[in-house]
Amino acid sequence: MKKNTKCPLRKSLRRILLYRGSLLRLQALGVKRVYSYTLGKETGVTAEQVRKDFSEYRIKGNQRGGYFVDELIREMESIFYSKGSQNIIVVGRGNIGSSLANYSNFIQRQINIVASFDIDPSKQRLRSDIPVYTMDRLEEIIQRFKVRTAIIAVPEIAAQEVCQQLVKYGIDGIINFAPVILKVPSHIIINNVNLSDEIESVIYCVSQSV
Amino acid sequence: MKKNTKCPLRKSLRRILLYRGSLLRLQALGVKRVYSYTLGKETGVTAEQVRKDFSEYRIKGNQRGGYFVDELIREMESIFYSKGSQNIIVVGRGNIGSSLANYSNFIQRQINIVASFDIDPSKQRLRSDIPVYTMDRLEEIIQRFKVRTAIIAVPEIAAQEVCQQLVKYGIDGIINFAPVILKVPSHIIINNVNLSDEIESVIYCVSQSV
Repeated sequence: MKKNTKCPLRKSLRRILLYRGSLLRLQALGVKRVYSYTLGKETGVTAEQVRKDFSEYRIKGNQRGGYFVDELIREMESIFYSKGSQNIIVVGRGNIGSSLANYSNFIQRQINIVASFDIDPSKQRLRSDIPVYTMDRLEEIIQRFKVRTAIIAVPEIAAQEVCQQLVKYGIDGIINFAPVILKVPSHIIINNVNLSDEIESVIYCVSQSV
Repeated sequence: MKKNTKCPLRKSLRRILLYRGSLLRLQALGVKRVYSYTLGKETGVTAEQVRKDFSEYRIKGNQRGGYFVDELIREMESIFYSKGSQNIIVVGRGNIGSSLANYSNFIQRQINIVASFDIDPSKQRLRSDIPVYTMDRLEEIIQRFKVRTAIIAVPEIAAQEVCQQLVKYGIDGIINFAPVILKVPSHIIINNVNLSDEIESVIYCVSQSV
């Protein structure tokens, strides 16, 4: 599978997201200043790593006597939300799809789920703030809301076909929760999240430690 | 944070899980033999990487004219299920916790969710195959079912406290879906899965690719 060279979902990017999580908690606790050492300890990396990541993303803060928490958060938000909130869609309203559609944590992150889709028309009567459409309205909704990123939460057997439809209608980024590795053109950003694997790898490690 | 040295949730382990996913699909399609090249292509790595991973986990198959699919799957299952199916619990029956408790994909993986927990007693009336208990029964259930691995799916604010209780009652492995990095003793295996971050990193990459 050819990797997208522009943004290979770098580890540094994930760490920036982790730092921001820590900073938001520190901010809520009233903390004003923070050292790279503290942030590293919170997120499980070294102080050097934190500074290296900040430098990669041109995050400056103010280093004398520690970074300003508010300032760091502001700089990180400007990295992630430079283009305002992003409209995304969820395809598949089974257990996982519905829990993502209703996940309140997204709102504060400016992740705006504008619509969800399911082949089952009865799902349109679901009690949910996020409307559920049938699949034939996919193209229309993607265009109307200028959606570029989609979550796939359909059964394994349907995932590749849904993926092809999404790409055809102009989606550039896909988070796939179906337990299958999807094949996409090289310009598409794809993140395959396999929940069973996340759990099973822990179970395996536990079984190894007697 | 001190890393668990015995099993640091290695990337190779995740790849073995990916190979197995591919093999199960190939098996369903009636494919009998497979080359390391094919498996690599399916999972996005080189043939050399596949062979290196097989060697690390002492997976042999039969290399002349390709590995036998059935044989590879059997060897992988014996790695993961050498100790039979594993009883696990889910703490928190909100959206994410409930979707995990009802996720049918786990059954075929011998992941056996025996119980779930919630502070809200009304959740005990949920329609679900997985029983919902109040938190005061945590210790009893962990002991009765010899549970060693737990999923945390409670709100961020409660996650660290739940984590401490689990560790106190003998849990060795934790998959944490609360958007916070939990602090655990060094002998505990922890996998922090942040769904917002998984989605947000894709949105960021898409916004970079204009």
